[in-house]
Amino acid sequence: MDRVAIVGASMTQFGDRDAWLLDLLAEAGDAALSDAGVDGADLDHLYVSNMASGEFEGQTGVPNALAHDLAAMPAYTARIDQTSSSGGAGIYAAWQSVASGASDVTLLVGGEKMTHRTTGEATDVIASLTHPVEYKHGVTLPSFAGLTARKYLDQYDAPRESLGKVAVKNHKNGLDNPHAQFRKEVDLETVLDSPTVADPLRLYDFCPITDGSAGLVFCPESVAEEYTDDYVVVSGVAGATDTHVVHERDDPTTMRGVVESSVQAYEMAGRGPEDIDVAELHDMFTILEFLQSEDLGFFEKGEGWKAVEDGVTDRDGDLPINTSGGLKSKGHPLGASGVAQAYELYQQLLGRAGDRQVDAEVGLACNVGGFGNCVTTTIFEQP
Amino acid sequence: MDRVAIVGASMTQFGDRDAWLLDLLAEAGDAALSDAGVDGADLDHLYVSNMASGEFEGQTGVPNALAHDLAAMPAYTARIDQTSSSGGAGIYAAWQSVASGASDVTLLVGGEKMTHRTTGEATDVIASLTHPVEYKHGVTLPSFAGLTARKYLDQYDAPRESLGKVAVKNHKNGLDNPHAQFRKEVDLETVLDSPTVADPLRLYDFCPITDGSAGLVFCPESVAEEYTDDYVVVSGVAGATDTHVVHERDDPTTMRGVVESSVQAYEMAGRGPEDIDVAELHDMFTILEFLQSEDLGFFEKGEGWKAVEDGVTDRDGDLPINTSGGLKSKGHPLGASGVAQAYELYQQLLGRAGDRQVDAEVGLACNVGGFGNCVTTTIFEQP
Repeated sequence: MDRVAIVGASMTQFGDRDAWLLDLLAEAGDAALSDAGVDGADLDHLYVSNMASGEFEGQTGVPNALAHDLAAMPAYTARIDQTSSSGGAGIYAAWQSVASGASDVTLLVGGEKMTHRTTGEATDVIASLTHPVEYKHGVTLPSFAGLTARKYLDQYDAPRESLGKVAVKNHKNGLDNPHAQFRKEVDLETVLDSPTVADPLRLYDFCPITDGSAGLVFCPESVAEEYTDDYVVVSGVAGATDTHVVHERDDPTTMRGVVESSVQAYEMAGRGPEDIDVAELHDMFTILEFLQSEDLGFFEKGEGWKAVEDGVTDRDGDLPINTSGGLKSKGHPLGASGVAQAYELYQQLLGRAGDRQVDAEVGLACNVGGFGNCVTTTIFEQP
Repeated sequence: MDRVAIVGASMTQFGDRDAWLLDLLAEAGDAALSDAGVDGADLDHLYVSNMASGEFEGQTGVPNALAHDLAAMPAYTARIDQTSSSGGAGIYAAWQSVASGASDVTLLVGGEKMTHRTTGEATDVIASLTHPVEYKHGVTLPSFAGLTARKYLDQYDAPRESLGKVAVKNHKNGLDNPHAQFRKEVDLETVLDSPTVADPLRLYDFCPITDGSAGLVFCPESVAEEYTDDYVVVSGVAGATDTHVVHERDDPTTMRGVVESSVQAYEMAGRGPEDIDVAELHDMFTILEFLQSEDLGFFEKGEGWKAVEDGVTDRDGDLPINTSGGLKSKGHPLGASGVAQAYELYQQLLGRAGDRQVDAEVGLACNVGGFGNCVTTTIFEQP
């Protein structure tokens, strides 16, 4: 079967942006089309990954507005929402649109505009994804992260400092990412001494609230060279759910959605964890980088923390993780994050990552919705 | 290529439901799975068509909650939003999931819960899909409908009464639909004498605000008979946009999204308008049934009103339209409506439509988002 290629990619500056969602989407959409050498009028399908434009801005119908702004009519368009993994879900939708033959050229643009709302308001919107049974007891995503981190540290005899080292590593990587929200190094003491949010996690164990957008252009591999010599292929992509009620999980330190989606993605790509050269993981909370790095099969269960301690996941380590800075330093505009993970891998695989460049032929992105409620895993390769 | 089959379908009672969205989705999802003889655990993908659960109920992450309720984990899940055509967009997504090989069994459930909000609140949520340029001048969807109706009547010398006859016909059809919100006949005088909403349109030219849900189970046609002998195939499906700013359209009486999506769907199916035996059109406003019946190629431009006058689109006419009662009588729970159109055609093609039964081998559904901003057209056939 003809594989699906990515022939263009973009991301906007992440951070506190003085622009509306539609402006951010148009900026990333235009840039991705330009990178691919594709006109809006050439598009068959246009997907927007976004969790909550209605809740954040009181604006819906955004994909139609974007089709208008990109002069893409009559391209078909729809919004894909899978909460904080909307970007990964959008990649899966765009892949399906091309793989099914429904579209010959698809643009995916992910984005979210959040910073014009207070932190409390933004947190309330995000918390609306949790099960009411847990929400009404105050167990929101940061609470789950704290509880899970405590259990992980106990169960695997890991030091608290190892979590902090995820933040230190990802901030260091973000320093070289011109699009990152936070371009500043932090030392371990700063992380460990920052205010407690959900014990044992501190402020620096959490990603920020962010505005931003990112875009990708998809087409069949058989025609990719009509657009560009520089493209990557999606060799594997899959998604999977875990229980929506988090407390029903047998082992909260295992994310079933990560396990199931990666098993399927590896099988589709004919790859295994040992083939991955670089990965972008969903470090919304530092603890999640440990869990994913284990549930993806990179490290044995309970040993993800040692890999960070040993520098294996540093940019110059054997398996660099979050060379972009991750959600932690780059920022986490919900609907954009999964798309921006792909943007980073696209840059790495094409040798365009500048000061962040690592040696990589195969990359993996893991995008987590909720507290692992739904996860997409995507494998990207040089053709 | 293996076509995509529908092996199960369901819809809930439409109307004022004392239940939350998730309850309605679970009711329709369970019923569709049961109709297909499929367990939740058999699902690969589960899509939810829904416009605004966050805005209406303050609840997001609904697809994950539904996967949980249907015991469908680890099935992949996502929400598809295309405003009032979310249901048609969901059909397109479900079709792509099977046609691309990503899923062997996909459940689509569309739904919306609206009646717990005031009419003003619900209208505000829907109005958020319009372009701010038009919205701030008070030009919401009903206003567009009034302006377009006036132009249509002038341009094609059609009598005001012809619009009213759409309402009369669809209410008559709905009388025999046990799931319809309004099961009462209305006479032409009642329609014409009802309060003015957007001149020349009256209250009875508009669909109501509705709670409800509907479900469909998709699989490759090659394995459909493993589930059931009674299935239909999706022979054509496509979607297309028109300008998001409605006043930029050259001719407001032509819906470009309907034209473009139907041309593509006909081509894919190897069919033309003359092959369609029964159709479900998006009669959110009576005028829209005229426009779609023309833009789909059923009737010449400006002659859709004559077909209604002449009884061509009656249940016993040559081309029955909205045998279900349409959005007008059945109700319009945004995310459910496109799915419920397919449910009606599934029933008609399988000879299960009871008192509403017509003689049909090929059916067409047209689902309109916004004021034609994005449209999906789907053609269903007996295998």
